[in-house]
Parts: sequence; C-alpha cells; structure tokens
Amino acid sequence: MTLDVFRDPRSVAVVGASDHPAKWGHWLGRGALTGAHRRTVYMVNAKADTVLGQPAYKRLGDLPEVPDLVVLAVPVTDSVVDEAITLGVRGVLDISAGRASSKDVAARVRAAGVRMIGPNCLGLYDGSADLRLAWGTFTGGSLGIVSQSGQLGVEIANLAASLGVGVSRFVSVGDQVDVTVNDVLADLVDHEPTRAVALYAEDFGDGRALIGAIADLWAAGKPTLVLTVGASAAGRETAQSHTGALTAPLDVVDAACRAAGAIRVRTPAELASVAHFVLSTKVNGDRVAILTDSGGQGAIAADIASAADLQVPRLSEELTAEISRWLPERASSRNPVDLAGVGEQDLSVYSRIATALATSGEIDAVLITGYFGSYGVDIPQLCTRELDVVQELAASGGTIVVHSMAADGPTVDALRANGIPVFRDVDTTLVALRGGARAARTEPRKIPEVSRLTGEVGSGYLAARELLADAGVSFPPCAQVDGVVQIPGLQAPYVLKADWLTHKTEVGAVVLGLPDEAAVADAHGQLVARLGAGRYVVEEMDVRPDAIELIIGAHRDASFGPVVMVGAGGVTTELDRDTSVELAPVDIEHALAMVRRLRCAPLLDGWRGRPAVDVQGVAEVIVAVSELIAAREDIAELELNPVRVTADGPLAVDALVVGVKP
Amino acid sequence: MTLDVFRDPRSVAVVGASDHPAKWGHWLGRGALTGAHRRTVYMVNAKADTVLGQPAYKRLGDLPEVPDLVVLAVPVTDSVVDEAITLGVRGVLDISAGRASSKDVAARVRAAGVRMIGPNCLGLYDGSADLRLAWGTFTGGSLGIVSQSGQLGVEIANLAASLGVGVSRFVSVGDQVDVTVNDVLADLVDHEPTRAVALYAEDFGDGRALIGAIADLWAAGKPTLVLTVGASAAGRETAQSHTGALTAPLDVVDAACRAAGAIRVRTPAELASVAHFVLSTKVNGDRVAILTDSGGQGAIAADIASAADLQVPRLSEELTAEISRWLPERASSRNPVDLAGVGEQDLSVYSRIATALATSGEIDAVLITGYFGSYGVDIPQLCTRELDVVQELAASGGTIVVHSMAADGPTVDALRANGIPVFRDVDTTLVALRGGARAARTEPRKIPEVSRLTGEVGSGYLAARELLADAGVSFPPCAQVDGVVQIPGLQAPYVLKADWLTHKTEVGAVVLGLPDEAAVADAHGQLVARLGAGRYVVEEMDVRPDAIELIIGAHRDASFGPVVMVGAGGVTTELDRDTSVELAPVDIEHALAMVRRLRCAPLLDGWRGRPAVDVQGVAEVIVAVSELIAAREDIAELELNPVRVTADGPLAVDALVVGVKP
Repeated sequence: MTLDVFRDPRSVAVVGASDHPAKWGHWLGRGALTGAHRRTVYMVNAKADTVLGQPAYKRLGDLPEVPDLVVLAVPVTDSVVDEAITLGVRGVLDISAGRASSKDVAARVRAAGVRMIGPNCLGLYDGSADLRLAWGTFTGGSLGIVSQSGQLGVEIANLAASLGVGVSRFVSVGDQVDVTVNDVLADLVDHEPTRAVALYAEDFGDGRALIGAIADLWAAGKPTLVLTVGASAAGRETAQSHTGALTAPLDVVDAACRAAGAIRVRTPAELASVAHFVLSTKVNGDRVAILTDSGGQGAIAADIASAADLQVPRLSEELTAEISRWLPERASSRNPVDLAGVGEQDLSVYSRIATALATSGEIDAVLITGYFGSYGVDIPQLCTRELDVVQELAASGGTIVVHSMAADGPTVDALRANGIPVFRDVDTTLVALRGGARAARTEPRKIPEVSRLTGEVGSGYLAARELLADAGVSFPPCAQVDGVVQIPGLQAPYVLKADWLTHKTEVGAVVLGLPDEAAVADAHGQLVARLGAGRYVVEEMDVRPDAIELIIGAHRDASFGPVVMVGAGGVTTELDRDTSVELAPVDIEHALAMVRRLRCAPLLDGWRGRPAVDVQGVAEVIVAVSELIAAREDIAELELNPVRVTADGPLAVDALVVGVKP
Repeated sequence: MTLDVFRDPRSVAVVGASDHPAKWGHWLGRGALTGAHRRTVYMVNAKADTVLGQPAYKRLGDLPEVPDLVVLAVPVTDSVVDEAITLGVRGVLDISAGRASSKDVAARVRAAGVRMIGPNCLGLYDGSADLRLAWGTFTGGSLGIVSQSGQLGVEIANLAASLGVGVSRFVSVGDQVDVTVNDVLADLVDHEPTRAVALYAEDFGDGRALIGAIADLWAAGKPTLVLTVGASAAGRETAQSHTGALTAPLDVVDAACRAAGAIRVRTPAELASVAHFVLSTKVNGDRVAILTDSGGQGAIAADIASAADLQVPRLSEELTAEISRWLPERASSRNPVDLAGVGEQDLSVYSRIATALATSGEIDAVLITGYFGSYGVDIPQLCTRELDVVQELAASGGTIVVHSMAADGPTVDALRANGIPVFRDVDTTLVALRGGARAARTEPRKIPEVSRLTGEVGSGYLAARELLADAGVSFPPCAQVDGVVQIPGLQAPYVLKADWLTHKTEVGAVVLGLPDEAAVADAHGQLVARLGAGRYVVEEMDVRPDAIELIIGAHRDASFGPVVMVGAGGVTTELDRDTSVELAPVDIEHALAMVRRLRCAPLLDGWRGRPAVDVQGVAEVIVAVSELIAAREDIAELELNPVRVTADGPLAVDALVVGVKP
C-alpha cells in the first residue's frame, strides 16, 4: 500500500497541539505550521480555544474537513485512532511515547486502508514538501534518514548538517506496528530529492526483504549506509555447533550488507562523513595521492590512510618530475607531495599539482590536507584567489577530498558547493574516502535460487555424514561397529568414534591412530565400558602430510535466514576467530572469495615451501553446505569440523547436523 | 643551558618585520606587538622606516639596546646570526624556512652561551607571558605543544580550541640545530601553566633521554600525549633476524611510551580529545555506565565502548532498583540506563542517576550521551534548570564525561568549566575516555641497570649457542661433527645442522628426525655434498609432545637502543605477527607481562585440555636475552627461534647472534 500520505498530505491535524514550549505538541504544531502555505494545518486540543495563534478544535470530528494526515502528539486512547479511521483519514503519525503498541489498532488501521507510522517515534520530515512533523531541527538536502531510534536519526541529521549535508526525508519508524523500515526504504526509491540513504536499525525483521529494498535503492543510484548495534549474544549462546559460536551477529549483518550492496558504518559520525562523501563525489579505487603544505600533516595523512586500508602509491618518475617543476628544492614531489609552505606565494600550485595527479591515471583520489581553506581566512587578500583555485580544482576532472584546518569559511563552502567534500580532521576525511571507495565497488549479490527439499534430520555422526556425502562432500571410508569389530577393506591407521555424541573430542569419544583391528577392538571395549553400548564408527584416519584444517559450517539467522561460514580450523579455532561469512547459498566464485578473505589464506597457497592445497575443492564444499542449508528448512545447523585439505582435495573428518526445533 | 629567554624575554626584535599581510614578518611583528605592554618590541627591516606603525631599524646594530630575543622572520645570512651573537643577545628564534640548517652557526651560538630555536620552524607562543611569536591563532590554556612539524602543532591547537582547550606554550622546534625536543620537554616540567603536553615527533634523537624527560613530566603530574608517524621500514629491511622483521618501528615507540609513562595517540584529533579529557578530569578504571535519553544512542555508545576496550558492566540489583525508582516503566534502569524521554519533564533525573552511579563503586565513569546540553538550547525555559543540573553533576564526586548533540551552548560551556569534558560525537568521547583511563594507569618503568660487558661475537650456531647458554638459556645436548661422525652420549632422534648458515631451514641445511648414528652419517654426507665441508652440529631433537613454539629475540633501535621481543613461533610466525616488544633490559615481572599480552597467551595456559607450559621459564629466557643485548653493545641482533616450551620448561633449538657492523 502506498505511503503517499506521508509525502505531501493535503492537510494535517495535530492532536495534542500545545502552547507550552516544553511539550511535544508545541514543537509538532509549530513544525506543521511551517508548511501552512501548501497545506491546511489544524490544531486539536481538548482544553484550549487557540493554539499557536490558530483556532483549536476539541476533537477530530469537529474539524471542518477530514484531514489527510493525523499526528498524535500526545498519548491517546485507541478510540481516537478509531475515530480517525471512521472519519476516513489516509494516514496516522503516532509520535506518542508511552502508549503501548497495539496490534489490534494496527490491524484495524490496515483493514481500513489507512497507513500508520509509530507509535513511539520522533516523527517525519520531508524537505521538498515542507513537511516538518518531527522533533529536531532539519535543513533540506539529499540524505534520506530512516531510523529505528528517532533521536539517533536526529543526531545523524545534526552531524550531517555540520558537514553541510541536508536531509531529504527523515522517518523515525518507532514500533513499526504498520509501516516498517522496509516500507520506508521502498518508498525512497522514487523519492527524487533523496540521493543517499542512512539507515539505523537495531533488528532487521524480514532481512531478505530488507536486502531487496536496499538493492532497489542501489539500482536507482542511491547508496545505503547502514548503522546497527552488536545485537544480543543470545543466538550464539544457544548454538550447538562451533559455527554458531564463531559467527558474530555483526558478521551476518556484514554479509547481508554485501548481498544488498549497502555500506555498513560503525558510528553516527562515520555515517555522516561517508554520506557527505558519496553525496559529493565518487572514487573508483583505493589509491590516494596526498597534497599538503606541511610534511608533518602529509606523513600523518599517509599513516592514517594506510591504517584505513587505502594505498598511498609511489608516483612514477615522469609524474614526479612534472610536479617538481612547480616546487622549490626543499619541497617534496613524491607522495605525499609537500609544498613546504610555497602555497601562500602562489596558490595555483594546488590546482596545477592536483590536476596533474588527477589526470595521471596513477591514483584514484587526491587528498588535500592542511592549510588550504585557511589562506583566505587568515590573509583576506588571498580570499579571491583561493576561490579561483576551488574552481580550478573542480575542473580538474579528478576526485578531490579536502581536510582543511579551517572549520568553515568561504573556501570551505565553495569546495562543498563544487562537489569537493571537506572535513575538519584527517581521520574523518580518510574514513569518508574509504567509505566512498567501498560504495563505488559494492554491488548487490544475486543470491542463487535453490529448490526447497524435504527430508529428515537423523541423529548422530553417520546420519550427518550420509546427508553431507550425498551433497557431494568427501569423507574417509568408514564402517559401523556393531558388537563384533570388523574392518572390511579399510586402510590403517584407524579412528574409532562414538556416533551419537555431539562434541566427541571434549568427552574422549574419539580414539585416534589405531594401527590394526586388534587395537580397534581394544579401544572399542574401553569406550563401551566408559560411554555405554551405543553405535560406534571406525574410519580410516586422514594422515596426509601438510594437511591444513578448516571448519565449514552453516546456521540459520533469525532475520537473514541461512548463513554459511568457513574458518581456520584445528585446536586454535576459537582463539583465532578467523572466519568468513555469507548468506547462503553462495556460488563457487563467492565461496572462493570467502576463502581468500581468511587471514590464514596465505597458508593455503603454499606457505614457506609447503605444497599449495586444493582451494577450489574447499570452495565446492562451501557451496554444497550453503545449498544444503538453503534447501532444507528443517536444518538449523550444519558443521564439518575439521575439513582437512591437501593438494589432493578436502576431506571432512567430522560432521554435525542439528534439526530445527519443532 | 636554560631556555629562560624563550619564556618571557625582556625585549624582542623581529628581523624582517613587514607591513605586507601575506608575509611572515607581518604576522610575527603583529604577534610580537601583542606583548608590547610587558616587553619592548623592535621592528627590523632593511628597507622601511616604519612597520606596523612602529619605527623600523635597518639592522640589529641600530637598535637602542641589545634585544633579549631575536626573531628571524626572513631567511638571513649567517652573518646576521653572528651579529646577534656579537651584540650579546640571549636567544634566537629562527623561523625562516629555506635557510639551510648550519651546524657551524649552531656551534658558534652555543659557544657564546646563546640558545637558538629552529631554523625552519613556525615559532613560539607562551600564553601566560603574552609571547606570541608564531604563525597561527592561539588562546591561552594549559596544554603545552611541542612539535617537529609546526603546522601539525597548529592543527592540534585548533582542534583543542574547538573543545575549549587552550595552549600554555607552543614550540615548533624546526631543524633542532640547537634546542631539541628533549630540551623543550625538560623546560616544561616547571612551567606552571602547562598541565599536559602534546608531542609530535617524526624521529626521536636520543630516545632514552626523551624517555627521561617525559618521565620527569609524569612525576610533575603532567601527562604527555605522543603523536608520531610509522617511520620508514628501512631499519626492518636491513635486519638479518626474524626479530627485526617482526618488530615494527611503532612497536618500539609504544615500548618507549610505556617506559616513559606517555600515552601514544594515532591522530591529531585523538590527541586533542584525550588532552581535553586529562585536563578536565581523571578516571581510575575501564568500567563505564552509560546514561542516555535514547535507547538507540545508549546501544551505539555501548557498542563503541566495547570496541574501545572499555567495559559496560551489568549493574547490581540494588543499584538497578535504586535507579528504577526515578524512571517510568518503559525506561531502562540497566546499563545503558535509558531515560526514555523522561528528561524534559524532570532534568534532575540526570544528576540523581549519575550521582547514584558515580557513588556506587560499581563503575569508574558515567557517560551521558545524547540530548543533554540541548534542553536549554531548544527550550529556553529549561536553560537555568539544565545549568543547575551541571552543578549537581559536578558535585556528584564521580568521573563524568558527556557526548552532547549540542555542539555548543551555555550548558556545554558550564560542563567544561566544571571539569566535565564534552564532545560532539560519541566515538571521540569514548576515544578520550579510553585515553584518560590509560593515562591514569600508566607509570614510567624503571629500566634496570646492567653492567656493560665486552666480548666477541663469534660466527655460526655453536658460538651463538654458547653465548646464550652462558646467559642461562637451555639448549638440547649437541656435538660438533668433524670428519668422522660420532655421537657420544646423545639421545635419538637427532638433528643435523650446518653451523655457519643463518636461515638454515630455508636452504635445507637442517635434517630432522635422524634415528641413529648411521642415519646421521648418511645425512652428513649428503649435506657436505650439497653445502660443502663446513662445520656441522648434531643435536638431540626436542620431541616433547604438546610443546608450543615461541620466538624470542632482541635488536638495537637507532633511537631507543636495545629492544627485546617475544612472539608466537612456528611456521606461521610471519603470518601471525603476534609479538610483544619492550625496551631492554626487562625484569621478570615485565617479561611475564610481555608473554601475557600475546594473542596466543591462552595456548600457554592449557588450551582445550593440553597441559599448561612453563611461562615463568619463558620469562626467564626473555630476561636473559634482554640483559645480554643491553650489556653487550657489540651485539646488533639476537634470536632464539624457535624456543620450544612444555610444562618442563623452554628449550631453544636454534640461535642467531649478529654483531654490530664496524
């Protein structure tokens, strides 16, 4: 159902409008009136005759017409909402905190074809429609803000404003009893003024639908920046597999962001900075040239760039020679380029060198750091010339970003007006540049479709082995041990395992390195004596030299559904926490990328003279596991731990499958 | 020699003073004149009769008196400096860039008992002495800034000013031909207005003297915040041992900061934020209570606090109950405490809850995050009440830090005036709080004295083994193989090594697991055929089960002298880069702390059922290696790699000693 009524309603009624400046109804009434030139605004107050100089109505039914949108600025009973429905309003914005969210009301609202935002939210703002129905101060612009926490949304708007970035639309979604985050995101796809979207969410509801909404925004050229919190560890505490324990909720959110083509940021300030960058310009890579009039500031910028995973490449001899023509001997024409104070004698060195760098093909962005932006402030005679240089920089054809010691001033304003983002400190500048580089290379991932399969989750190792072997995973040959120990056709050495125990090693239910049938029989006797007469499995022991151990697993996330993981295995798995996570299923290309992202990836390629292992084979196991959990909704967790891999391929030597609790 | 002349000179002459606003001589002349009420200020200009409305003198010799301090605002010849010396000035501040640093002039300056700062610097500022001889705009305060890059120092001053922090003294040291960073730091120890020091340095000269100067500042209650850059990798490229390759220059700087009691920061903005914190208040631990009026802002703050290695502890039931008395049901009285919007009805909940938290003994700091500071700005009627709450917060007796959505305003000013630091974003707030917690627990380390020893650095494994065995390190029994292979009294299996090669494994100069004398003879024949008839060593092979491999080494840093390192060993050493570094020598307590800081430390304590290993024995090896490199100045590098350690103790199975190049 359309959210049109929240875009540019014909009329708005504020229930609880007030003259008391500490009351919400005061702010909302005042805000609503700023749009009185394009829509009718009604004040509703049970006790006052006038509010904010306007006539006030006791109740909605007293209004001369049915308002398009009703704003509830005070906690009201459900009967007021019902009255609005009966009257025939098109939308309700329920700002009131402290009102219990009523699913019943939501159902009645929806049944009537009415849409409702809230309750327990901070309201709504639309810059291009002069719709100001929110706490907080907003200036118009092109950043859409959708927030599950109203005040955090306002904080983002404030931080963005301090960088000259205005808001196209602000929606505090509150308890989402009707309109959800996903609805609001979908509605921004064709909201013309919105050029980028900031999303703060604490939980993700229908995560796959969210991914679809963000991918649609991406397709419309609108990057989405996602801010979230670590979520609870509750899901991890209940997981039975190591996979569950090793997969942090934020790893899953990051996987979802990759799938959606979104950029995750860690803080409101980072969000505002990256938003300023992506709304100003684009950067198509990680290579940064640093241009400064101070060696110290250049060195600090280079250090912070490296820490932010950006490259500060060495420039070619030709480019260095070209730059050095404009500089005195004490300056540096390497990267960082250091003007060594020559700027104030001739400001055009900035634009000449920036243009040479930008057009060289050797770098992707020029970072100007230091004094630029201050010349005109400190030496008024240089103001006009500095503004000319801004135009020359804008005409350079390259990506330029500025850290200026001048917090503001005419040059800073001119830079921003010309699509050159400016920041107050170099850390923020580089965080923004990194975010911009990520935004440029991110792209939604088409998650492969799999046919749903049904089946039964058997218990124990043999059942898990069979399920995964059917999916294409290789295991060593094995035999079941029933009463009499017989090992038909297996190669020594052997492993003996209790089939029914989940964490076998921890309880001594695995006996390794048994040299012959007699030793197996002996070990079997001892295990039976200790653990009881269950089902035991004897297996060929994988003793291939130089094998590397990995863990490959999958689980089901409450919001985002099936998730697959690969990690460094062996006894230090929990210590290393070296894992890659994606939403399942993945294709072979993404499975390979998961392996490549592991910190231990160099070990797989033949570390210090060891043979390289079969990475393709590992990726095939990841694909198989990811498809299995995606196809089988009755499976909660899957795990192969360890998978031993050599040049000859991967071999899973333990397996676990956990069914979804009924 | 005293630096008194740079504190509060009786008279100042500015050579190159100018009326042209784009010239340095203009700024410096103008700045000098702001102190004309307490000292005589002379303008020196070869071409003008007046400058800045003052009479101008052609040369220094024309002045009516010998000035105390001469400021060189333009590049001059050495003869001008010589003239100043001859006249009998006490100090020279050489700001001019582009003048080659002359060691000769420095020598003549010093021989005459004159002190000189620069050349190639941005000048000097002292707030309490109205001494303004620098480019840049400064406001007085209590932060001393000493910078090897003038403009970076000005940037730090600007960022500090944006947080309400002023400067006590600013010294841009330039080329340090006479006055060094160490001199200026020493001079700040009894500079009363300076309460904390910001140091930017790109290299560290006499590093051990620097540590002494910073430790003296610490003893005077003045924390030093150190900003530096990653320095070049040149030192690493020339190292022969893994130790050298594994020890980053910044690891050595961090070790030096620990020894000095300094706090290293990564960026100018971080420096300014931590300075604001330590100049406002103290925090004696890592436990943070978060107090907010927005659940979202509280959650984000908790996330960022955890990422900053701060604790957000669960509050006791008693404290939770006490807090909940002041809150409505929808609020949260857990940590983060969420007022859920109740603040604007009764602002005293902030001070009541903050006081309850601060006096509980359960936490070390209260972080107020969100709207506080904005009430009075948005709702003028609440302004006075909000200011009252500031007083109540200040009287709480606890450490309070505020992130306020209000960039400024009367409440922000009042908070700062009452020793409560305020920041604009929560990331910065928590970076500052973490810095404050570090500053509170840092303390200079007394580096043990060792007697210098002389000796000779022999070549090859046996010589290294002997040197380190004499220092107390245990090795497996071994014998030299000369012509006939004989193994008197050694236990199989054996290892055979070529004594003279440095990286033996890489060139196949080590043969492991030889079962008997015949196998050793056979392997010896093959090695001789391949590597030649040098000296070979046969050694008992350490095959103790569950041994953990470490690397322990030492090298000599150009600035900070001997450095000792312990790291995770084995084939993945270079991949893991899991190391701890300290200046040498260390005592047993610091050696144990080095081991405990390793990421792999849990492995040593009995990981997943393995036996714990002899950590005390490892620490004793670290002490021995650290004392050896400190005592023997002829040793450039020392390395034991690997050291295999079990519950029975550490055993070094390879050793390398590299002498200092003559």
